[in-house]
Amino acid sequence: MQIAILLYNRFTTLDAIGPYQTLSQLPGAETVFVAERPGIVRDDVGSVGLAVEAALADVTEPDILVVPGGLGQVEQMDNGALLDWVRAVDGHTTWTTSVCNGSLILGAAGLLKGRRATSHWVTLDQLPGLEAEPTGERVVFDGKYVTAAGVSSGIDMGLALAGRIAGDPVAQSIQLGIEYDPQPPYDAGSPDKAPAEITALLRERLGVLLPGPEQPRQPR
Amino acid sequence: MQIAILLYNRFTTLDAIGPYQTLSQLPGAETVFVAERPGIVRDDVGSVGLAVEAALADVTEPDILVVPGGLGQVEQMDNGALLDWVRAVDGHTTWTTSVCNGSLILGAAGLLKGRRATSHWVTLDQLPGLEAEPTGERVVFDGKYVTAAGVSSGIDMGLALAGRIAGDPVAQSIQLGIEYDPQPPYDAGSPDKAPAEITALLRERLGVLLPGPEQPRQPR
Repeated sequence: MQIAILLYNRFTTLDAIGPYQTLSQLPGAETVFVAERPGIVRDDVGSVGLAVEAALADVTEPDILVVPGGLGQVEQMDNGALLDWVRAVDGHTTWTTSVCNGSLILGAAGLLKGRRATSHWVTLDQLPGLEAEPTGERVVFDGKYVTAAGVSSGIDMGLALAGRIAGDPVAQSIQLGIEYDPQPPYDAGSPDKAPAEITALLRERLGVLLPGPEQPRQPR
Repeated sequence: MQIAILLYNRFTTLDAIGPYQTLSQLPGAETVFVAERPGIVRDDVGSVGLAVEAALADVTEPDILVVPGGLGQVEQMDNGALLDWVRAVDGHTTWTTSVCNGSLILGAAGLLKGRRATSHWVTLDQLPGLEAEPTGERVVFDGKYVTAAGVSSGIDMGLALAGRIAGDPVAQSIQLGIEYDPQPPYDAGSPDKAPAEITALLRERLGVLLPGPEQPRQPR
């Protein structure tokens, strides 16, 4: 079972690592990081450089595709070669997944038309422009398409998907292995729970960094 | 504010990335990954290679030290150069932290003597041999020493520490930015919550991979 995690310049590291740390522990799993240009791919904070050995052409039939989000997502919306690859490998996957605003890349590739999906809360309203139906759920399954909310939600998605693939005991064992018994020090992890002024500030700041298209974008 | 994240062969990626994705967003933070041998450092699953530019000698006065755990932790317990560096930089840090069995490295460096600390649940019983007092808490503050439980707990630690450093609103904003509103599909993330047979199996499997010393080890 090959898991392909697509990286691009200015991805968000935890978006990729949440699914990685869970799904890579499935029996028989082999994970490959893949990018348009192999080498060191840097994240959107700038301090992580992840070594990528596989070019797009090297990965043609993954069983699971994971598309993380990140501040570099916007540029990928017009990256024809990358979107073509996403569409092509989707023809072979058992599961096509995304974390955070990675779902906008799936949407731009035309894969979420008419499907329920999610995204980072700041970019959720960009889904209808890609003909997807946004939900307020943290992890959304629609057929073989699995989208997760912002950044850290990839852990929840990875465990949920592990359960579908290998059964509950395996997924529970992975959860116990990473001691995922979350105890956040605040209850501020979603826009309706965080203090209103913090939500407003962050929405404004991230909204500038992750703009939707000025004109409604047609999925390709 | 420099955050130094120590890597070594066969570290656990999420151990390092949980604190990274939270602490690196503190105002004025600069994160550096550091290792005995710079270059690509591989994790304990084997598919992640993280680019490390700084050697131990290049990082002498970090404000925050983060020591992740991993299957390679055992070998580092006898790595004098690495333990010497941990002790030396600890002389300059404001916060010295670990995730998972990374606390055993802090302990081997002699930094947890007489302190309350935690570790991955499988290795918790190795703390007394390092003169530390194990607790059942997920994140343990004892003076400037902050230790977190297994793998995913580094996210909780990063947020708690962000709050101590920069105040609650900043930490809440970071939590909202990574949409950390966890919804695990199972309640199996700690040994007392997971089904007993799963806990027993994992304890046996990980216990072999992460053995304590045959003779009680004296912290250096």
